[in-house]
Parts: sequence; structure tokens; C-alpha cells
Amino acid sequence: MVEAYAVFEPKGELKPYKYELEKLLPNEVVIDVLYCGLCHSDLNMIDNDWGISTYPLVAGHEVIGKVSELGSEVMNFTIGQNVGLGWHCDYCHNCDECNDDDHNLCKKAQGTIIDHYGGFATKVKADFQSIVSIPDSIDLESAGPLFCAGVTVFNPLLQYDIKAGSKVGVIGIGGLGHLAIQFLNAWGCEVTAFTTSESKKQEALDLGATYVLNSSDKSEIKKAIAKFDFIISTVDVKLNWNLYLRTLKTRGRMHFVGIPLESLNIDVLTLMIGQKSISGSQVGSPSTIAKMLEFASLHKIKPIIEKYEFKDINKAIDRLRSGKSHYRIVLHR
Amino acid sequence: MVEAYAVFEPKGELKPYKYELEKLLPNEVVIDVLYCGLCHSDLNMIDNDWGISTYPLVAGHEVIGKVSELGSEVMNFTIGQNVGLGWHCDYCHNCDECNDDDHNLCKKAQGTIIDHYGGFATKVKADFQSIVSIPDSIDLESAGPLFCAGVTVFNPLLQYDIKAGSKVGVIGIGGLGHLAIQFLNAWGCEVTAFTTSESKKQEALDLGATYVLNSSDKSEIKKAIAKFDFIISTVDVKLNWNLYLRTLKTRGRMHFVGIPLESLNIDVLTLMIGQKSISGSQVGSPSTIAKMLEFASLHKIKPIIEKYEFKDINKAIDRLRSGKSHYRIVLHR
Repeated sequence: MVEAYAVFEPKGELKPYKYELEKLLPNEVVIDVLYCGLCHSDLNMIDNDWGISTYPLVAGHEVIGKVSELGSEVMNFTIGQNVGLGWHCDYCHNCDECNDDDHNLCKKAQGTIIDHYGGFATKVKADFQSIVSIPDSIDLESAGPLFCAGVTVFNPLLQYDIKAGSKVGVIGIGGLGHLAIQFLNAWGCEVTAFTTSESKKQEALDLGATYVLNSSDKSEIKKAIAKFDFIISTVDVKLNWNLYLRTLKTRGRMHFVGIPLESLNIDVLTLMIGQKSISGSQVGSPSTIAKMLEFASLHKIKPIIEKYEFKDINKAIDRLRSGKSHYRIVLHR
Repeated sequence: MVEAYAVFEPKGELKPYKYELEKLLPNEVVIDVLYCGLCHSDLNMIDNDWGISTYPLVAGHEVIGKVSELGSEVMNFTIGQNVGLGWHCDYCHNCDECNDDDHNLCKKAQGTIIDHYGGFATKVKADFQSIVSIPDSIDLESAGPLFCAGVTVFNPLLQYDIKAGSKVGVIGIGGLGHLAIQFLNAWGCEVTAFTTSESKKQEALDLGATYVLNSSDKSEIKKAIAKFDFIISTVDVKLNWNLYLRTLKTRGRMHFVGIPLESLNIDVLTLMIGQKSISGSQVGSPSTIAKMLEFASLHKIKPIIEKYEFKDINKAIDRLRSGKSHYRIVLHR
């Protein structure tokens, strides 16, 4: 019997919920959940913000645990092994995207918390090719957020072939941004952090930023005109995107991993001058997650977390809703 | 003495205007103008739409002519040689962009008609590294538009490494679009033309489009969902850009060479799904112009033009303003 916390209606409170796992398929594993990160998209699903939630809904997609059951066709994993599971718990393994190791772009990818019970539970099931082994050197307690926030900001470094020495801007120093700074610093980049928060300035520097600028101060942003090879935006607010575009060098790219609530208002001429690009991406493939874990291990990169016991899950969710969590929340037993 | 047609105030009529060329610099050539194309950006400069015009203004930046004078340091050109000159007539030759053969992105590039007398004249001066030799097999009369419209739509094929067999959408079948279709068809691509004009449908097919869809009909555009590797937009009107983004495949790119009058309204989530990109570019470097001419020669690609004598330049400009020219206008002696 799985003991979970489910929500039964949009924006509802989470309540204890028990169920049996469906019969294990040959390609599946069961993970006994040790830790689960809390991500803003868990809130979006709990609240049915995207109109795709079904109830009872068991959220949680930054799952850390031990393999406890193996389907008959599972390779490469053993009982008791430490693994993680992120936004997707299965792929079609049969499309161009899957064949190109772009599993996260597979149109039939199964969301861990979309019509599927996620990690706010004692056990969770997943396709073995969606889970990733965790190196011994990675701290299990704080590893959860790497599986969603971490890979979301690491993936673009591979996708767009970011080089050591590149000048990169990070907009927003929160759950995603504080990891982006660490990855980029270890990648050998010159990192400029943009934040509205005075209190986060020193922290951004401590995390590895070379410079910190005020993201809402036009004159500060203008200091960075034609400076960046790459900008990664993690925020959900509307900013002066055309001004930020001007902070890109020739052929520079502004890449979105956060989803601003309002659509982007882009002047085409600003895009043309210097032949700039805008793009967006979500999470990353399992092999990218594995590369990220290896890199995080090498450079001792880990999320800064607040811990809550599973039984206090509603408090944890209130804390996440407050926007004050520092920087990610992880549930533990 | 140069005999030109100049405009003396924004939106004014063009009138005969005579001047002496300034002393020839060692790096410069004089071109005796045979033909000059008319481009929409000539109108923008005549009308001071961009606030950068100085009067008297001699427009014309699709210049075809013969080299008649050579500065002391000019290499690779001889008197009497057929050459063309486009949007830029000089570069700094000293920046990262120039060193990377991205002269068109040089921040100090000199515009042919910005504080410089252009091709609506008997003679025009230019840095020898900004002019391009015209292969014998290219029809001189219609070559002018290749130097601005042509390279503008050809350049992205090189910049984004478009492959034979790629599925490409061309939005807008005008001066730029009718050349884009020809280049893409010869490049081995499957070309889908988008136009609002029923009358242009057959013409687009004749130019090499495989399919033609109505750019203002949502249901037609929806036929192309997840179809294109690349879209090139040549229009200056506002379209449903988020719907067009959905016609891109995974990792597809929507590229702007036309400047829509209203800024783009882009939903970041639409960009993220399939990890898509948006970008823009203007013209191309001289070496790209040379490659384009060679490709145009090989595949017998040429602009469809309407001809006017230089003395009828105001009629030609009225025709361009009417939006009815088919597809480009060229002035001749």
C-alpha cells in the first residue's frame, strides 16, 4: 500500500491518501521515496492552472529514493540503488526526439504528476529509462531539486554549446537562478546576476556571480549593453525584454527557462541588429540529468534548501506559495 | 560632376542634383552606375522614418555598374569591371564582426545611403571591400535587387545551415519572398509559401514553392502544425506569430528578415514546447553576396522586375509606394 498526500480539488489542502500501485510493467521500476523537492509547477498542477489536472492528484516530481522493485526488462539498475526521477516518468522511445536523445521533447512523454501519481508518496513507479542513478558523492537530501530546477538551467549549457569564458547573464536569483549561477561559474563563464533583491546581492556573489546588477534599474542594465553571449531568464514577471536584448553581443541568445506571466513584446529590429536569437526550453533528457549530476559532483554544486517533514506538507506548500523559500524546499521522512 | 536625383526634405519629391565626388581615398573605387534597384528602405530613408536621414539625400543601394576609378590600395578590381554595391559601402575592418566575416554586423559599417550619396546617381563611391564582382552569367539589368533583397533572404540559409530536404515556410510573397522561394527551391528544400493574395498562388508555385497556404486563414496555417524546420518571414504586418511558432518542428526557428510594424507578441510556453528559436537578420557580408551570386548564376535565379528610366524616378517611387510593384523596381539609363 502506498501512503501519499493528495489534493482532491483545485487549490485544495493535501490530505493522506492510500492506494495500491498498478501491476508493474516489464520496463518499470518502483522507487521507495526518501526525499521529494517542491517545485512551483507542483503548485500549478495542484491549482489546475494549466487545465490539465485530474484529482485526486499526487504531486511531487523531484523524487529521490531507492529502487525497490524491478520489471523483467529493466537493465542497469539494482534493488537498493539510489536514483532520482524528474518531470517525466516515461517516454515513447520511438520518435525522432527520443532517437536524438531529446527525450524531454518527446511529444508523448509522460509527466510524473500528470495523470500519474508522483513523489508526495512512499512509492512511485517509473519507466527505468526515465530515472537516473545518483553518484555516491551527491548529497541525497538536497539532490531532489537538481532533477527539475537543476537540469532546467544546466540543459541550455549543452544545447547552445556555452563555452568557458563566455559572458552570461542570469535573470532572477531564486530556485532556478541560484543553481544557474553555480553551474555557470563552474563552467568557466563570467556570470552577471540580475536581481531586484538587495539582500540577494551578496549571496549571488558568494554563489559564484562575478557581477550583480539590479534587474529593475534601467541604468544598471544599460551598463551591460552588448556584453553577453547568453542570457538565461528564470523569472515569471514581465521585464523590459528589448532592453535586455540590447545587452547581448552579436549573435547572442536570450533563453527562457522561466515562463513570464505576460507574453514577450519583442521589437524585430532589436533582434535583427546583431542577429540575435530568443529561445526557450524545459527540463532536459535523462542523459543530460546524468551529465549534470556528474558535473555537480565534480564541482560540489548543490541546491540551497529548506527542509520539511512529509507530514508538514501543507506548511511546506504555504511556504512555497509565500515566495519566500530560500531557495528550494525538500520534503523528508 | 555627378548627376543625381536627391530629395531635399522628408517625403519630398526627388529632383536633379549635381555634386563633385570627394577626393578618392586609397581604399575606394568609383562605380559608374548602370542600374539601381528601388527598395522599401529607400522610401524609409526618403521619408526619414527612422530619424537618421540627412538632406539632400541621394538614395539607392542596389547599385549595378562599372568600376571607373581605383584608389591606390584597391586590389582585385579593374577598370570597366561589372560590380554591385548593396546596403553597406564601407566597414571598419577592425572589429570581431569584420574579422569573423560578419561585415554586415559591423557596428561601424557605413550605410550606402546614410550620410553618403547612393546609387540614384551617375557615379557612386565605395570601399573596394564592400563591392562585389558580378559573374558574366548574371543578367545585369535585374541584378540590383540581389544586392539587398537577394542577400537578405539568402544569408539565413548559410547562417543557420539550412539543409537540402529541409521543410521551409516563406511568409509573404513580395520582393523578398519571391527570391526566397527561388533560392530555397534550388537549395533542395520543400518550400511552403504563405500569402494572402490568391493571384500570387500560381506564381509562387511557378517560382518553386511546393505548397501555397493562405497566411491569414487560421485553418490553412493549422495544416502545417509541427511541419517546418525553418520559417522565414518577409512581411511588415502583424500575424498570429504564436500560431506560426506551432508550425515549427522540434528545434525549429522562425527567422525575421521583414520588420513587422508592431512588436512580436510571443508566448514563452509556445517557444519552450519543442525548444524553438526566434531570430532576425539584415542583408549579409560581401562574401555572402558573392556566394549568392554564384548560386543564382548556377540555378538561373533572378528577380522579377519592373523597369523605369532614371528620369522617371518619381513615377517609380510612386509605384513602389502603391505596394503594387511586381516584384522589384529597377532604374535604368
